[in-house]
Amino acid sequence: MEAYLDNSATTAPCAQAVEAVHKALSLVWGNPSSLHRAGLEAEHLLQESRAALAEKLGCVPGEIVFTSGGTEANNLALFGAAMALKRRGRRIVTSAVEHSSIAESAAELQNRGFEVVYLNVDESGRVPEQELTRLINRDTILVSLMAVNNEVGAIQPIDAIRRALRFAGAPALVHCDAVQAFGKLPLNPQRMGVDLLTVSSHKVHGPKGAGALYVRSGVKLQPVLFGGAQENRLRPGTEAVPAIAGFAAAVQALPDCQTARAQAANLRDRLVQGLRTMEGVRINSPPDALPYLTNISLPGLQSETMLNFLSQRGIYVSSGSACAKGKKSRVLRAMGLSDAEIAGALRISLSRFTTWEEIDAFLFALNEARMNLARK
Amino acid sequence: MEAYLDNSATTAPCAQAVEAVHKALSLVWGNPSSLHRAGLEAEHLLQESRAALAEKLGCVPGEIVFTSGGTEANNLALFGAAMALKRRGRRIVTSAVEHSSIAESAAELQNRGFEVVYLNVDESGRVPEQELTRLINRDTILVSLMAVNNEVGAIQPIDAIRRALRFAGAPALVHCDAVQAFGKLPLNPQRMGVDLLTVSSHKVHGPKGAGALYVRSGVKLQPVLFGGAQENRLRPGTEAVPAIAGFAAAVQALPDCQTARAQAANLRDRLVQGLRTMEGVRINSPPDALPYLTNISLPGLQSETMLNFLSQRGIYVSSGSACAKGKKSRVLRAMGLSDAEIAGALRISLSRFTTWEEIDAFLFALNEARMNLARK
Repeated sequence: MEAYLDNSATTAPCAQAVEAVHKALSLVWGNPSSLHRAGLEAEHLLQESRAALAEKLGCVPGEIVFTSGGTEANNLALFGAAMALKRRGRRIVTSAVEHSSIAESAAELQNRGFEVVYLNVDESGRVPEQELTRLINRDTILVSLMAVNNEVGAIQPIDAIRRALRFAGAPALVHCDAVQAFGKLPLNPQRMGVDLLTVSSHKVHGPKGAGALYVRSGVKLQPVLFGGAQENRLRPGTEAVPAIAGFAAAVQALPDCQTARAQAANLRDRLVQGLRTMEGVRINSPPDALPYLTNISLPGLQSETMLNFLSQRGIYVSSGSACAKGKKSRVLRAMGLSDAEIAGALRISLSRFTTWEEIDAFLFALNEARMNLARK
Repeated sequence: MEAYLDNSATTAPCAQAVEAVHKALSLVWGNPSSLHRAGLEAEHLLQESRAALAEKLGCVPGEIVFTSGGTEANNLALFGAAMALKRRGRRIVTSAVEHSSIAESAAELQNRGFEVVYLNVDESGRVPEQELTRLINRDTILVSLMAVNNEVGAIQPIDAIRRALRFAGAPALVHCDAVQAFGKLPLNPQRMGVDLLTVSSHKVHGPKGAGALYVRSGVKLQPVLFGGAQENRLRPGTEAVPAIAGFAAAVQALPDCQTARAQAANLRDRLVQGLRTMEGVRINSPPDALPYLTNISLPGLQSETMLNFLSQRGIYVSSGSACAKGKKSRVLRAMGLSDAEIAGALRISLSRFTTWEEIDAFLFALNEARMNLARK
């Protein structure tokens, strides 16, 4: 049997998403900017998709900017906010454990003269609230913190950012990369106190090629790409209607996130129980991590060797972020893990379609890997 | 009957593209950056798609950078080249009749301190070769000229750019926006003497959400978006594999462009013949325009009124570029047309699937529009 346990890298498109893409390609393929009926039908499908996403986030449709994916939405958030607020301050606060699309955008902003400072995390991968008050000052124009870490599942204190900004009297916008949290935690940007929030289609069983940035009404950003007036002048180019319609269908098919989370927690508990019987396995995710994500280390073994061994047996996991292919994990390093622990890390990530059988197949194959690979 | 004659705005996905997207969504949905088998299969599909596009352009697969579409590819070309060469000069040469993704990127580069100068066009919409020698100087770091104009079909003298650069001793890179030309003219970037060339999926019967920039081997660009190492570090983010696979399938399904062009020329001749019988209709496209595109003016009538009248009868044409929705045409203005001619412009654009019946239905409905709308 096969076990796909790399759902933080990407997910299988659900039937509803596949059907919606097919419909858009076959029937509603006009250009949403065209003024004739074929165009207006495509525009209508686009607006329906926008409304579906807005409903899920508890915002208004005009606050949704569709992009080509999470990476582009994160770029638009960081560069868009930094360029719009550059006259009000130079400091950008982010964490040491962000996705590469945030980390590399922040590094580029530093090259362009902004001051970028990094929130540390504790041994559970979480940013302690006092880190926010330590780094946020009156010169801070942007705070970008992910909702859930993509490697260990640590849930970050997003709610505390707004308080820290008020305390410091900072003019900053708050951005949350919610790619790993979307569909798994209840997300309401207004209640979270965030101005900008990133979500991605292919992490919630939608097609690759679509994502969105929530931009709170009244917030002004500079665009990153230039051209047509699409997406409220924030993201030019003919909209990827098939991918966007598939994204919306996937979002509408998301189950109640509390029920789904309880189910994921049961699977995670079985996984952890199985792992605890194997000597030398270290569980890197904190006990209160999002249950969809479990990071472990097998010191003395190399991640890549294990991945290959497992892949040959139809078991698919990862060593960390797919977007940081081959690199040593910044996240585990920031959590204080040793080189051996980082070199032997595995990430097991679940979806609502994950089965008990897949967990058991993984545990069986991992045990086999330990026996076989350690022997050599 | 319906007549879709707005193929320069977007095209109907062909059966091969629809099937390829469906296959990618259903069977090959792994993340190409993942190291397990599901990832490797997706990576393989991505490389097959890259090879298909490279074959069509007569280049090597490593010279193809997939983007979310033509607009993003144009942005990457302009900003990428300008930032990479900013120490060698400040002048950027482009034309007065480019797509908005070039025009607005160029305007933004001017805001950032580059000197942007514009090649004029003659009354046929074509850049005279002497304009190139007039504007290209030793300080020129980038020349961006479209292969075929998207509003009137004028074919631009791309081959002459390289000569003008040599003459001036300019260090410039040459970029060609070939979105309207791809699949319709033989395109070989090496033979054309261009370093960068933009193509788009949804203009060649592929899905929306994919495009590509040809980047000649050895040419260094700065990325516009930051994140993972995908696409040779020039375009981060999980690749939109379904759209890219659909793009490749559409490219592979393209017929021989000479045969297709002869067929389009026959349709265009019938269209022009019909238009010539209607008094007051001005044909704005030059006789040697790409036959897929015919721009006309009905002075005294408003484009939008005609579009609506025609749309109600199932006839879909446009007033100009879909990406410049509602704006008066810069292109027709540059060609020296009067305000009345610009206000009454219509663009009729064909594809290889266009039929004689569609042309006749358009001619019939246009005549009706002239009678009915002029009477009021």
